[in-house]
Amino acid sequence: MDAISVIRAKRDRGRLSDGQIDWVIDAYTRGEVADEQMSALAMAILLNGMDRAEIARWTAAMIASGERMDFSGLVRPTTDKHSTGGVGDKITLPLAPLVAACGAAVPQLSGRGLGHTGGTLDKLESIPGWRASLGNDEMLAVLADAGAVICAAGDGLAPADKKLYALRDVTGTVESIPLIASSIMSKKIAEGTGALVLDVKVGSGAFMKSLDDARELASTMVGLGTDHGVRTVALLTDMSTPLGRTAGNALEVRESVEVLAGGGPADVVELTLALAREMLDAAGLPDADPVKALADGSAMDVWRRMISAQGGDPSAPLPTAREQHVLTAPASGVLTALDAYAVGVAAWRLGAGRARKEDAVQAGAGVELHAKPGDTVAEGAPLLTLHTDTPERFQTALDALEGAFTLAPEGASFTPSPVILERIDRP
Amino acid sequence: MDAISVIRAKRDRGRLSDGQIDWVIDAYTRGEVADEQMSALAMAILLNGMDRAEIARWTAAMIASGERMDFSGLVRPTTDKHSTGGVGDKITLPLAPLVAACGAAVPQLSGRGLGHTGGTLDKLESIPGWRASLGNDEMLAVLADAGAVICAAGDGLAPADKKLYALRDVTGTVESIPLIASSIMSKKIAEGTGALVLDVKVGSGAFMKSLDDARELASTMVGLGTDHGVRTVALLTDMSTPLGRTAGNALEVRESVEVLAGGGPADVVELTLALAREMLDAAGLPDADPVKALADGSAMDVWRRMISAQGGDPSAPLPTAREQHVLTAPASGVLTALDAYAVGVAAWRLGAGRARKEDAVQAGAGVELHAKPGDTVAEGAPLLTLHTDTPERFQTALDALEGAFTLAPEGASFTPSPVILERIDRP
Repeated sequence: MDAISVIRAKRDRGRLSDGQIDWVIDAYTRGEVADEQMSALAMAILLNGMDRAEIARWTAAMIASGERMDFSGLVRPTTDKHSTGGVGDKITLPLAPLVAACGAAVPQLSGRGLGHTGGTLDKLESIPGWRASLGNDEMLAVLADAGAVICAAGDGLAPADKKLYALRDVTGTVESIPLIASSIMSKKIAEGTGALVLDVKVGSGAFMKSLDDARELASTMVGLGTDHGVRTVALLTDMSTPLGRTAGNALEVRESVEVLAGGGPADVVELTLALAREMLDAAGLPDADPVKALADGSAMDVWRRMISAQGGDPSAPLPTAREQHVLTAPASGVLTALDAYAVGVAAWRLGAGRARKEDAVQAGAGVELHAKPGDTVAEGAPLLTLHTDTPERFQTALDALEGAFTLAPEGASFTPSPVILERIDRP
Repeated sequence: MDAISVIRAKRDRGRLSDGQIDWVIDAYTRGEVADEQMSALAMAILLNGMDRAEIARWTAAMIASGERMDFSGLVRPTTDKHSTGGVGDKITLPLAPLVAACGAAVPQLSGRGLGHTGGTLDKLESIPGWRASLGNDEMLAVLADAGAVICAAGDGLAPADKKLYALRDVTGTVESIPLIASSIMSKKIAEGTGALVLDVKVGSGAFMKSLDDARELASTMVGLGTDHGVRTVALLTDMSTPLGRTAGNALEVRESVEVLAGGGPADVVELTLALAREMLDAAGLPDADPVKALADGSAMDVWRRMISAQGGDPSAPLPTAREQHVLTAPASGVLTALDAYAVGVAAWRLGAGRARKEDAVQAGAGVELHAKPGDTVAEGAPLLTLHTDTPERFQTALDALEGAFTLAPEGASFTPSPVILERIDRP
């Protein structure tokens, strides 16, 4: 077996055999297959595709490249959520404690932001004292105690994926449904959750711009989860406009705490509850009542226990950015569109995100939305507030927002996009 | 400009702009674009193609990555030949001195063999004392004195191609007509020859297996040469069976000297003369008489002067392999096929070629053919003699030759393939 023959097979539109896939993933993890060989193979896969059986084997080989976690010692059933990433997507923050408050265990291994989408760990790190990295024993302890844990995935989990993910990022080979599906699912299956709900975002602020692509990704992932004994379901959800009213690290934590306190923006609450119900259903807890858990403060109690267990002070004031700039409405009218991608790029440029893995993020930076599509605004009223510690970045953020919103004359009709577009529960 | 946007443009079936091509070739040469990025781009080019204008710019950028040689100080017109590589293709050895004997200057920058095709420099290095590496001044001196020089290309010539060629070799991205054409032509144009004849091989022993692919490669290269002011013409020639009666380093030198002495196999003589006439025509010397130059010994005189000038002893006995193994005809009949690729692999395995760039080759190793397609052979008569210093390799060479020849009953009709299949003189 050698790298060139595997590359040539896919290049020439052939199927990769089980043996070829097992070998190339293992050899790449060990460094025997070089980065320049794997990137050529990734490009051939991106352009020539893989069928379902190849994707399944590829995923299994990435799982086998590392350790698998085991939550069988827990009394509660485990259930997890994964989002393909969007702008203002803070849902994990209220969702994990909410589902735990309803009786499931939520082992939420999360990532950092890259590009215009934020990362759950970056958001939580704006809470003074909070630590993202836990050892396996520590993670299990938090999970057993609080019922939920949100932390960084250990290096031992699907190391082949970790290496390949970083490589794809710099070689233009991210946008491949087989590679995205196997990357997500190898980590989630290795993590050992019993049930999984996928939030597949669709729209300008998401990786999947079209409903067809999102459907294919979702059904591929549902198939992979099901094949590995994980009860898996996917919701396709709208990402044409940001979720909620904030995009940025501390800004999103603040909004998440509002949701846990029984308030928060309607779209965030709706999606949080819908995902909670799916996670609880998949965990075999269909009678749990997440609305009640928000109303009676039990979800907030889990949040505080979970944050404290990881060194964070849930009562400490959140950091704010040193400078603000308010963007006002140029005319009165109905806001009919506010583009998610533009807001994501603006927040990123203000310092909420990173251009390279080694960059630091600003805790307080981001964009605050004072109106959402469908709202009526008056001329001169605030539309957006930009937050940053580095005011020299305001202009570049404003450039990103050029053309990002549409104001129609007052009284114009507006049909809102539903938050949840489709539900997919079979391959 | 960044590597990912260039990769994505080609991945998404777009055209690369002049600016993108210039930047990516320059940045790759300087090491700013990484190998894993260039290999992803090469795979995207292989699968999605480049149009003629992109190939022209890519070639120009590779030429611009290094120095260009200048032969304008020579009195004689310069003319060169390039073969895409085949089994037993020793044509450069008799051809360069022959064309020089007819009045042109032949600056023949050559390469080493990799895989089943032999390399001109490896062949000449079997001559005791001969040196492949010359400085630019030394090369010009040999050219001015002998009229022909065969040597290794200096590191300063198209360094972008040198780096990309090595990368393609290990990433399954060799078989791309745009990349092959630009690789060959960037070196030849940077070399500074005034005229160029391309010998594009077609058949099992060549990179181009089909006449259509060979035509496309030939016309692409003719277009590139013409655009850069190099008078360029291509012959498509047969590589379904080995050229001549030897494949191997010293074995091929011996056969080349036979041609220079006025003898040698008919196909080698025919192709040498055809290419000589094309080179002389393209150099503006249509009245030169290569047949006479072979017959009167003047080509042999140039050969001896050229070999001596590079430290070789043209009178020294050539090395021979320590062990021989004779393969005999299993039945009487007409040899109707003798597969070039199989013979090439056998010679390679016997030690005539290298598997990795850093391997050494055996001067005496190779395959000697006692019959060519069309010949009648008697049962038990020798068909092939295998030569090697490492007799443990006989079996693996014999394995390669399994099914390589076809014997038809005596008296069976046989239509020989012409040596020269087509001539292409326009894009």
